[in-house]
Amino acid sequence: MNDDAIGVDDVLEHIERLRHGETLTMKWASAVLDLHRADRLADYQLSSWLATIAARGLRFTETVALTRAYLGPGERRDGVRREGRTVVDKHSTGGVGDKTTLVVVPLVTALGVRVCKLSGRGLGIAGGTIDKLESVPGLKLDFTEAELATRLATNDVVIGSLSGDLVPGDTATYGLRSVSGCVRSAPLIAASIVSKKVAVNADAVVFDVRYGAGALLPDHGSARRLAGLLVRLGGAFGLRCRAVLNDGSVPLGTAVGNAAEVDEAIRFLRGNGDRRLMAECEAIAVQMVGCAEPDEPASRIRERLRSAIESGAALSVFVRMLEAQGGDTGPVLAAEGYCRPQVRTAVRARHTGWVTDISSLDIGRAALKLGAGKVFAHDVIDPHAGIRLARGLGDQVAEGDVIAEVFHRAGLDSGEAVELVSRAVSVGRREDCRQPGDPEPVTEADVRTDETGMVHV
Amino acid sequence: MNDDAIGVDDVLEHIERLRHGETLTMKWASAVLDLHRADRLADYQLSSWLATIAARGLRFTETVALTRAYLGPGERRDGVRREGRTVVDKHSTGGVGDKTTLVVVPLVTALGVRVCKLSGRGLGIAGGTIDKLESVPGLKLDFTEAELATRLATNDVVIGSLSGDLVPGDTATYGLRSVSGCVRSAPLIAASIVSKKVAVNADAVVFDVRYGAGALLPDHGSARRLAGLLVRLGGAFGLRCRAVLNDGSVPLGTAVGNAAEVDEAIRFLRGNGDRRLMAECEAIAVQMVGCAEPDEPASRIRERLRSAIESGAALSVFVRMLEAQGGDTGPVLAAEGYCRPQVRTAVRARHTGWVTDISSLDIGRAALKLGAGKVFAHDVIDPHAGIRLARGLGDQVAEGDVIAEVFHRAGLDSGEAVELVSRAVSVGRREDCRQPGDPEPVTEADVRTDETGMVHV
Repeated sequence: MNDDAIGVDDVLEHIERLRHGETLTMKWASAVLDLHRADRLADYQLSSWLATIAARGLRFTETVALTRAYLGPGERRDGVRREGRTVVDKHSTGGVGDKTTLVVVPLVTALGVRVCKLSGRGLGIAGGTIDKLESVPGLKLDFTEAELATRLATNDVVIGSLSGDLVPGDTATYGLRSVSGCVRSAPLIAASIVSKKVAVNADAVVFDVRYGAGALLPDHGSARRLAGLLVRLGGAFGLRCRAVLNDGSVPLGTAVGNAAEVDEAIRFLRGNGDRRLMAECEAIAVQMVGCAEPDEPASRIRERLRSAIESGAALSVFVRMLEAQGGDTGPVLAAEGYCRPQVRTAVRARHTGWVTDISSLDIGRAALKLGAGKVFAHDVIDPHAGIRLARGLGDQVAEGDVIAEVFHRAGLDSGEAVELVSRAVSVGRREDCRQPGDPEPVTEADVRTDETGMVHV
Repeated sequence: MNDDAIGVDDVLEHIERLRHGETLTMKWASAVLDLHRADRLADYQLSSWLATIAARGLRFTETVALTRAYLGPGERRDGVRREGRTVVDKHSTGGVGDKTTLVVVPLVTALGVRVCKLSGRGLGIAGGTIDKLESVPGLKLDFTEAELATRLATNDVVIGSLSGDLVPGDTATYGLRSVSGCVRSAPLIAASIVSKKVAVNADAVVFDVRYGAGALLPDHGSARRLAGLLVRLGGAFGLRCRAVLNDGSVPLGTAVGNAAEVDEAIRFLRGNGDRRLMAECEAIAVQMVGCAEPDEPASRIRERLRSAIESGAALSVFVRMLEAQGGDTGPVLAAEGYCRPQVRTAVRARHTGWVTDISSLDIGRAALKLGAGKVFAHDVIDPHAGIRLARGLGDQVAEGDVIAEVFHRAGLDSGEAVELVSRAVSVGRREDCRQPGDPEPVTEADVRTDETGMVHV
């Protein structure tokens, strides 16, 4: 049977067989994606296929096949010009409050590393970088390959998304995964991420893999397996890859929501960063600079990163980037920033004590209920919706203190979101305050190449 | 969290957790079905949930929970009046050319057993009894519960489908399973079948479980497991259940397609039945009569079945049933029958030899391509589309002989279907002719109650 002969009925039979153990080949994956792109396979059929892959898992060779199918016949593009310098990319699996891209990309660029950062949209409760940046009025984020090449030739840094055809298979599946409960699947995550990195043809990629309730991966073990799969899968396509594991069980920083996170990134670049946000951004930036300058010691990279913040160099890169992409930079300096919600509702402490835990999961779900992310494919994100945490882990609070604010549009009933935020922030004894895990680097040398079993998460 | 509070975002999280092993409870299954019925959960979300259940499998207690969720709060209805006689139902998992319901129901009724047969529509390549009977002009097949009770009070037999509300959860999922590659899943099959049997409140049910490529279940082992699950699940809801395993790897009888199968059933009831069709129908009918008359020996039941055919009693029941339901009975006696396709295309033997095998799978797929079944939810079935096999297993053929005819509407390109039928009928040496397995009864006593693992198929 050649590819042309694969019809929808064959795909339904393929789904049944896949579930019963048949190997996923590039031929079948390409056929499914092609039929869906041609509007011959319905969304309920594609989501069934994705759910079957997620539930059954894929072997490594199947994951490579899926990645190749996502890429399509062209595979590697010439989108990124080199001119003798290593082009480094970065990807986070996403987490509640994860604005590391917005911080790390200007920071690393300020150190002279050329960065081409293609980002995605939100999956589940974690917002995507593109969603966040869309809260900057006027900012151009959608590029064709030609535009990307031109921009990178004249700028050190570009953040954006490429028009659909760069990785056609991923475009088709990405949104549907988010709205059909197929987010936490290592092979689907890895094929999606790595296909985009291969297509844009960077030299090196650093993966920020977050774990814990509320992060994409539920626990350290599954995050470690995904990090290994990402590094190994990228390697199979010729990319130099590193990863950092980060504890995402607590929201990162103080802001959750699209515009609110852009504002927090700006505060960070001005030197007013949250301590944990700093630790995680530094760990990622060290790996990114390390890819471009393998002989530079980590301690020296750290010093240079700090001085890039102190000197204002990193903030200038950020502003230059926004300007180069047509964004309104006025709010960077305005106290109000980009986040201008119609309503702010205070959430108050119900007990006196210390903040022992902040649940990413509940904060993320509250943000969804406020309109900061998508539940349905057709949902429209409210860029100003979100949450500001007024107290952090370990802080002391008195009953009635404002522990958070929720931001939303007028007319939205914020009751459920307020309840979720209130439940998210646990108040108890000082000695019960949680200590989130420290960032852990993962290099190619750390990746076990176990080919016996399926990879789920 | 109470049921009212479960929203779509909770369901997406539930799908992720289900995949990672969380127990499926009636609460969650009901929430998913309710949200879908309220048009708040999209088809691509429901199909993802179904595919996740299919791929992960369910434990027995989870399958009971799913069945209860299908049934909804009412559970058992008073649809069937008893008046002292056991009401027996029958269900086939479907197979290519499986018209046993059309044969067995009048046969058993002729022996004095009261039958209330609620049927479904086609799933995948196997047509449903309702689809087949819709080729009888004028025949009323959709009943409300009240209509069903009235009809069963004045008739010994009713075949039909109940308007959606009898088993609301099954109605929502049945069509979607068929068009999203979620057909061959034991828990989904069992919950669907048993919920309908419980709702209609028959006393006893005989399950006809077919196996082999082209049948619902791929092999004898999976069919045996499904038969056990059906008998056990029915038992958990108070039904007396038996099953018969049948080899469905070869199409049953000589006709495949909706009207064509009705015509073959009529020929059978006139005494011109195919030998294997006879063996399978007898095995099922013996179990059905055995449910109502447990003391009657099987050999005596067989004699009575044969004489019901010879005397014309079974055919009269069939005609009376069609008349009672408003169907046009003219074609029962006409040579042409109900199947009146616009075009008949001959398929000829490419070799000389004996028919060593006939692939149900390829015949079923050919029937789909001719328009006899659905690939998409919105497809319209052509009742006259189908296939007549001119040669059976073990028959001798010469190159150029007509081995089959395909029926279709004018304008349809039958090339692929002809090729599939041609490939389906293998011609070789006489000693290589396949022998399909004999029917095997399964009773409650045969069912192993292993509660350790998941049931897939």
